Amino acid sequence: MKIKVVKDILGANEQIAERNRQLLDSKGVFAVNLMSSPGAGKTSLILETIKRLKGKTKVGVIEGDVSSSLDAEVIAREGVPVTQINTGGGCHLDANMAYSALGNMPLQDIELLLIENVGNLICPAEFALGEHKKVVIPSIPEGDDKPFKYPLMFHKADVVLINKIDLLPHLKFDIQSFSQAIKGINEKVKIFQISCVTGQGIQEWTSWLLSQMSGR
Amino acid sequence: MKIKVVKDILGANEQIAERNRQLLDSKGVFAVNLMSSPGAGKTSLILETIKRLKGKTKVGVIEGDVSSSLDAEVIAREGVPVTQINTGGGCHLDANMAYSALGNMPLQDIELLLIENVGNLICPAEFALGEHKKVVIPSIPEGDDKPFKYPLMFHKADVVLINKIDLLPHLKFDIQSFSQAIKGINEKVKIFQISCVTGQGIQEWTSWLLSQMSGR
Repeated sequence: MKIKVVKDILGANEQIAERNRQLLDSKGVFAVNLMSSPGAGKTSLILETIKRLKGKTKVGVIEGDVSSSLDAEVIAREGVPVTQINTGGGCHLDANMAYSALGNMPLQDIELLLIENVGNLICPAEFALGEHKKVVIPSIPEGDDKPFKYPLMFHKADVVLINKIDLLPHLKFDIQSFSQAIKGINEKVKIFQISCVTGQGIQEWTSWLLSQMSGR
Repeated sequence: MKIKVVKDILGANEQIAERNRQLLDSKGVFAVNLMSSPGAGKTSLILETIKRLKGKTKVGVIEGDVSSSLDAEVIAREGVPVTQINTGGGCHLDANMAYSALGNMPLQDIELLLIENVGNLICPAEFALGEHKKVVIPSIPEGDDKPFKYPLMFHKADVVLINKIDLLPHLKFDIQSFSQAIKGINEKVKIFQISCVTGQGIQEWTSWLLSQMSGR
């Protein structure tokens, strides 16, 4: 009975997500859903991505948070369109929230839409928003056991960006077994090692984004 | 309507939590609910706490995870009673899960019960388990904006353990403004700075635990 209700909710969400995807496609917008633990570096990555892609594509951002608009304010300073979603306690974005936010975005002026999900490695994996690609951002300080503990998130990912790679010398973290564990769950996933502090891997990530956008 | 349903769920959870607390009290068990982001160091803290309290009090552990029993296996090696709860996708423990786990624990042989919640800064704050104290464990690499972004978690905490303090030299993190932000949300909260690598602050934390247990 409980499982039935959950299935209905997820089914309804999928339908709205599909409508969102059609809307994005009709406007020529490529959308990416960025998911991670709290503090893994989603906002820093968005800021770096905006800077690197300036003049190459037109970026817009949807910011998901339980409360506060701290991140949206930081991103707005970069001069890109940004809409804040506050879930008011909810631990993930859903397709309906994304639909409302899309209505506030100037989609005709956007080619790449970066959606920052709520900081959580669990429920965001279950709720499609209408995005074209799902990106998961684990970070070195979180430890190398995360693929085993949050398998659905890594299973659903199109790309994994291993962030804060600059902290590797200061921490116990087996990057090879970590990458192997991810590939074991999801052999098609693309993995980049990045740092928003040193800039390592950001070029590869933004090139991949542009190639995906032009290859549609 | 939606809010009504949520209230009913939380109300039912509170009732079961209260029963759990009565059961724990009748057995003389002091229970602590440990909450944090994924990878903030809950399991390492439990291991350190067990080691420091050996011979001083009898510890038991309930391990909450979405899936896997990695952490429970590590803790069992310390020779303390441990029960694993797998939420099967759920993003938090609830009082009913805790009740089932309590049935598997030798409560007569336990004085201090450490409950490791699922790695998530959002929903665990809403679901009491029957614990006597709530402990939140933010860590330095997550950044100093967390109290503003996850206010309910910090509002509900009895203790905040700022973990991975040894990484402070390698990261931008304003510990003073972080502590002030927490106090702004929750002026009665007790804050310790700790590191499970260097051992900093662990003595203060375990002394506080023992004082709370003897003061009941």
